Parts: sequence; structure tokens; C-alpha cells
Amino acid sequence: MSTETARVEAFSDGVFAIAITLLILEIHVPQPASGPLGAQLLRQWSSYVSFFISFAFIGIMWINHHRLFTHIRHSDNGLLLLNLLLLLGVTFVPFPTAVLAAHLGHPDQRLAALLYNGTYVALAIVFNFLWHYASSPQRHLLGSEVDQHSIEGITRQYVFGPVAYLLCMVIAWINVPASLAANVALACFFAIPPKFARAG
Amino acid sequence: MSTETARVEAFSDGVFAIAITLLILEIHVPQPASGPLGAQLLRQWSSYVSFFISFAFIGIMWINHHRLFTHIRHSDNGLLLLNLLLLLGVTFVPFPTAVLAAHLGHPDQRLAALLYNGTYVALAIVFNFLWHYASSPQRHLLGSEVDQHSIEGITRQYVFGPVAYLLCMVIAWINVPASLAANVALACFFAIPPKFARAG
Amino acid sequence: MSTETARVEAFSDGVFAIAITLLILEIHVPQPASGPLGAQLLRQWSSYVSFFISFAFIGIMWINHHRLFTHIRHSDNGLLLLNLLLLLGVTFVPFPTAVLAAHLGHPDQRLAALLYNGTYVALAIVFNFLWHYASSPQRHLLGSEVDQHSIEGITRQYVFGPVAYLLCMVIAWINVPASLAANVALACFFAIPPKFARAG
Amino acid sequence: MSTETARVEAFSDGVFAIAITLLILEIHVPQPASGPLGAQLLRQWSSYVSFFISFAFIGIMWINHHRLFTHIRHSDNGLLLLNLLLLLGVTFVPFPTAVLAAHLGHPDQRLAALLYNGTYVALAIVFNFLWHYASSPQRHLLGSEVDQHSIEGITRQYVFGPVAYLLCMVIAWINVPASLAANVALACFFAIPPKFARAG
Repeated sequence: MSTETARVEAFSDGVFAIAITLLILEIHVPQPASGPLGAQLLRQWSSYVSFFISFAFIGIMWINHHRLFTHIRHSDNGLLLLNLLLLLGVTFVPFPTAVLAAHLGHPDQRLAALLYNGTYVALAIVFNFLWHYASSPQRHLLGSEVDQHSIEGITRQYVFGPVAYLLCMVIAWINVPASLAANVALACFFAIPPKFARAG
Repeated sequence: MSTETARVEAFSDGVFAIAITLLILEIHVPQPASGPLGAQLLRQWSSYVSFFISFAFIGIMWINHHRLFTHIRHSDNGLLLLNLLLLLGVTFVPFPTAVLAAHLGHPDQRLAALLYNGTYVALAIVFNFLWHYASSPQRHLLGSEVDQHSIEGITRQYVFGPVAYLLCMVIAWINVPASLAANVALACFFAIPPKFARAG
Repeated sequence: MSTETARVEAFSDGVFAIAITLLILEIHVPQPASGPLGAQLLRQWSSYVSFFISFAFIGIMWINHHRLFTHIRHSDNGLLLLNLLLLLGVTFVPFPTAVLAAHLGHPDQRLAALLYNGTYVALAIVFNFLWHYASSPQRHLLGSEVDQHSIEGITRQYVFGPVAYLLCMVIAWINVPASLAANVALACFFAIPPKFARAG
Repeated sequence: MSTETARVEAFSDGVFAIAITLLILEIHVPQPASGPLGAQLLRQWSSYVSFFISFAFIGIMWINHHRLFTHIRHSDNGLLLLNLLLLLGVTFVPFPTAVLAAHLGHPDQRLAALLYNGTYVALAIVFNFLWHYASSPQRHLLGSEVDQHSIEGITRQYVFGPVAYLLCMVIAWINVPASLAANVALACFFAIPPKFARAG
């Protein structure tokens, strides 16, 4: 953590931490008057599914943000604005998550899954913009010890993101549960460091 | 980030991060029982508009706070209290945002827009107070390497703030959508660094 | 900020920041269907009063926490636990605040004000415990450069706290608005640095 | 706090701070229209009990997290993922807490207490995984000055966790109030540093 980027990282950590913790508020607390607890807990399985996928997604976005800022040592106004655009997406995630949780298993689940994966497409695009901006050779925002090989590894893995989430939208159009499974698989892919990921 | 101001910045980062993330909670989650999802999502367009403008506003206030504390190296009790007054405004923002979101397109939208822009006027005034307090030559709270030119650039840009938001209140009295457009334009103005801003 | 206490301070900053930002959620957002906006905004004056007093109270507690940890350089298990007890009080504040906001101007406002000031009594006592624990000469948790004069200044100011808030409880028993005025006065007293405060 | 683990700790601090502060939102605010305030405050005793136990539990988990990262100096992808798994448990805690608060004293309190203690079993297991991963001799994530004695002290205390919380589940099956008392006792056990804890 360089002193120049310390506050960008601290503010981003705060936003990631709050967005990931707010997800639990979307899970409805069963009340004694509404029937047996066990049945109520089981009925809202869709809330647990979308809570878990969104937690994994935000958590792994944080790991990626952390990974990028291990390389980024300098900060300028453009980086602050692109980082803010990324955080706009992060704070938005609890909304499509709640919409998906409410509609999974209902007639409109396809639209809910499209909104959900559309948010991920947008986030994947902003991640690419942020990384391209920071790693551009003439801008010198990366630490001098970062080698070209690591940069290209991240670039290759990230380019894959928007394409993959667009594919998830197509899958969601055909079959919603299959698109959720694809989401979990993609979260795993972005959880592994770029050097192990052979994408494209 | 100097060690003397590190905790003021950390606490402020926390407050900014939470206020900006809480905005999403104001967006109502459509339920299957209340009708088709698509129609419900479209009906609450005013929530998305006020979410987006408020996100941009808080985010850019954070960038400005960050910019000021790049220059501020020392801290005293007065600075802590003025910073707290600023944070009072920041934590208040989600309330007028929610009021505006609820009333946009309804009879009382003018009053809601006045409350919204009035909050911004107050915040712009506190930003000026904080900067004048910190940059006053006899108080020595700035880093010794900060040149007079940078100080005057910020002072000039900030003086413009309260006037501009008062003008937004006048516009809101005449036409609410026009005032929202003016808000977006002002957010862009304060997003650019002071050296590029030629105000007044 | 010493490296040994850095994480205690970071965690505490987070809790203070969230508790102070959550206060705004207690203010009800008027809806178009419930009548004219202006009348609705005025009717909930008690929410603004308790929001403002609680914001000032938590903010000034943070300033005091920051002031103590400027002196505290070392950490042990007892300090972590006492700090946790303090944070228990801080996270509790939004609850009596909301109770007071709901009952101000209603028959049970006295009980609500007693609960509110009772929370402050407890917090003032924990602040004294924390400071006595940290400043005890045989424990060596303070920085070596802290002089005896500063220590006694803080001790004198803090001893005043529980007594003053107990007095507020007595005033609340007789007259609730007067107790709120006393709360504001006390917040101002603890906002000033100990060297200017001549208590007891 | 080493620079390599600084951001993992900052992000974790944020999540712990938010999860511990959100607990207060589960306590219902009595309204004037629902009857006398005193009776309403007393009726929801179960909310205070579960708020207090969960606060103690999350707070002491934070102290333990802090204690582990005093020893952990280096970070790798596996540590980030295990830490994320731990935080998944931390953010989940407000949900079983709210379920327990709603059902304590009602027919389904046994199931609620099992869910509550089951969450703790899972968290205790993840704590063991995280520590075993970090303290494994071939991985070199600990600081070089950490002695074998301290490592074994923590290992011995942590191994006790899952067993103890499983026992709490058995007690909850027989008697719910007794299981809550056992929870408080266990929180105290994990609050003391490992060198004083003689477990197993």
C-alpha cells in the first residue's frame, strides 16, 4: 500500500465492506406469528442462494481490487473517478441481489436474472477500464518493479470478464438456474490469481 | 496522509463510505405480488435518478475531502469540529435524497428539490469554512511544501460552490428537472482538479 | 497512531462511523400519499432534534476517543476488552435515540429521556474506566512523552461526565426539553480540549 | 500490522465493525400508538439478550482476528479466500441473531438456538482452518519472531472451539436458556489470551 493510494484503498475497503455486509439485511427474518420456523426458513431458499452468490462476487471483486492496487502505486484524478465508477457498481449490487432473491421461482425470474447479470457485465467493463487506465505505459501509475508479464496476465484474465457475463445473460434468457451455476463458476475463475488463469 | 491527520481521514472515509452505500437502501425492491417486475422497475425511475445524482455528489465530495487533506498535514480541535460539521452534512444527504426520490413527479417535488439543494448549499458553505480555517497562514495546518498558487486555486473553486447551489435552488423553484441537470453539471465541475477549473 | 494500537483505532473508527451514519435511517421519509410534504416534514421535528443531539454526542465521543489514543501507545487484552465495552455503548446509541424521537411530545417522553441519558451515564463511566486503566502508572500503556499535567487534565474532565449525565437524568425527570438543552451544553463541554476545561 | 496484510486487516475491520453495529437495527423501536413505553421495552427482553450475546461474540471474534494477524505477516491467495470465508460467517451472524430474538420464549426457540449455535460451530471451524493454513511451517506466513510456544497455545485454544459449540447445540436441544449461558461462558473463554487458557 503506497501512501499515495492509501486513502483510495481505505475508502474503497469501506464501500466493499459495507456493500458485502448489507446483503444479509435482504434476508427476511421469520416471525413466530407467520407459522413454523423450519418451514419459513426453507421457503426462502432463494434468499440464501442470492446472498451467497453476491457475497462471493463482491468478496472476489475486493480480492481483485486489492490485487490491482498491489501494482498501482500512484494516483491521479482519472483514477479516482474510474474507481468511483467501480464503487457505484459495487454499492448497486445489493439491489439486483434483492430483486433476484424476491423473484427466483416466480414468473419474472428471467428478467431479475438479466438485471443481475447485467450489473456484472457493467462491473467487468469498468474493471477493464480501470486496469487499462492504470497500466497504460505513458501514465506511470504502476510501481516500477511490476513486470510486463504480470500486467499482461491480468489484462488477459480481465478481458474475459465482460464476454463471460454477457454469456451468462444469454444463459439466463434460456435457463435461470444454469446462469446462477455459471456465476459461481466465474467467481471461482476470478478468485484464482491471473498467473494460473489461462484465458483466451 | 500524515500521521497527525490519519485518524481524521480514516473516520471520514468510513462516514463517506457508509453514506454512499446506504443510498441503495432507499430503492424499493419490487415484490412478485405487486405486479410485473418490468413495470415496477420502470415506475420507480425517480429513485434511480436521485440515487445516481447523490452517489456522484457524495463521491465527488469525497474526492474533494481527499484533495484538501493531501494539503492539510496538521490537526487541531477546530479542524476536528469543522470536519465533524462537514460529516453531519454528509450523513444527512440520504434523507433529502429519499424525500426527492419519493416526490419527484408528484405535486410537492419543488419543495423536495429545494430541501435537496439546500443541503448542498450548507455543505458547500462548510467546505469553504473548513478550507479557510485550514489554509489560514497563521494556523500552519498545511504542509510546508504547498504553494500559494494551489491554495488560491482551491479557494477560487470553492467560493463558487455556495453561489452555484443557491442558483440551483432558484432553478428548482422554476423547474425541477432543470435543477437536477444543473446538479449533474456542478458535480462534474467539482470533479475536475482546481487548476483546470477557472471559476470567477 | 502507534502500530500497536492502529487496528484498535481502525476498528473503533469503523464502529463510530457506522453508528453516526445509521442515525439518519431513524428519520422517516414522508410519502406523497400521506399528505402535503411541508406539514409532514415539520411534524417530525422531534426526529431532527434527537438526530442532531445524537450526532453531536457520537461525534464528540469520537473526538475524545481520538484524543485518548493520541496518548495511548501500547495495547493489552484489558484495553481491547474495555474498548469493546465502550463500543457496545456506541452501537447502542441509535436505539435510545429512536425511542426518544418516537416519544418526544408524547406521554412517555420522560421514560424515553431517562433511557437516553442513562445510556450516556453508562458511556461516561466506561470512558473513565478506559482512561484510568490506560493511564495507570504501573501499566505503561501511555507514550513516554505524555506529561503528568495532560493526564490529570483529562482525568479531571472525565470524572465530571457521569455526575453531569446523572444530573441530566434528574432534569429529565422534571422537564424533558430542559434535559435536552443540558445534553447540548455537555456535548460542547466535552468538545473542548481538557486544558481549557476547568471542571471540579 | 505488516504492509502486506494491512488491507486484509482494514477490509476485515470494516466488515466486523458493520456487522457488530447492524445488530442494533434488529431491536424494534416501540411506538407511542402501541401502548405504554415501559411495558413495550420490557416485553422485548429477548432482543436485548441476543443483541448482547452477539455483540460479545463478534467483538471477541474481532479480538481473535486481531491476535492472529499480530502473528501473520505475509499474505497469499489462499489466506485471502479463507479470510473471506470467515467474513462470510461474520456477516451472516445478524440473521440467526434476529431469528433467535424473534423466537426466544416461543415454541420454535429450540430450532432458533440450534441455527444460532450452528453458525458458531461453522465460524469456529473456519477459524481453525485459517490458523492452520497460516501457521503451517512450510508456508512461512507468520513473522519470523513468532515462537513455537505461542503458535501451539493458539492451536490448542482454537481446537476447543468447534467441540464446545457442538456441545452448545446439544445443550440447546435440551434447554435453550442453558445454551445461552454456555455461549456467554465460551465468549469469556475466547476473550482471554491463549497463554492463560489451558484447554485440552
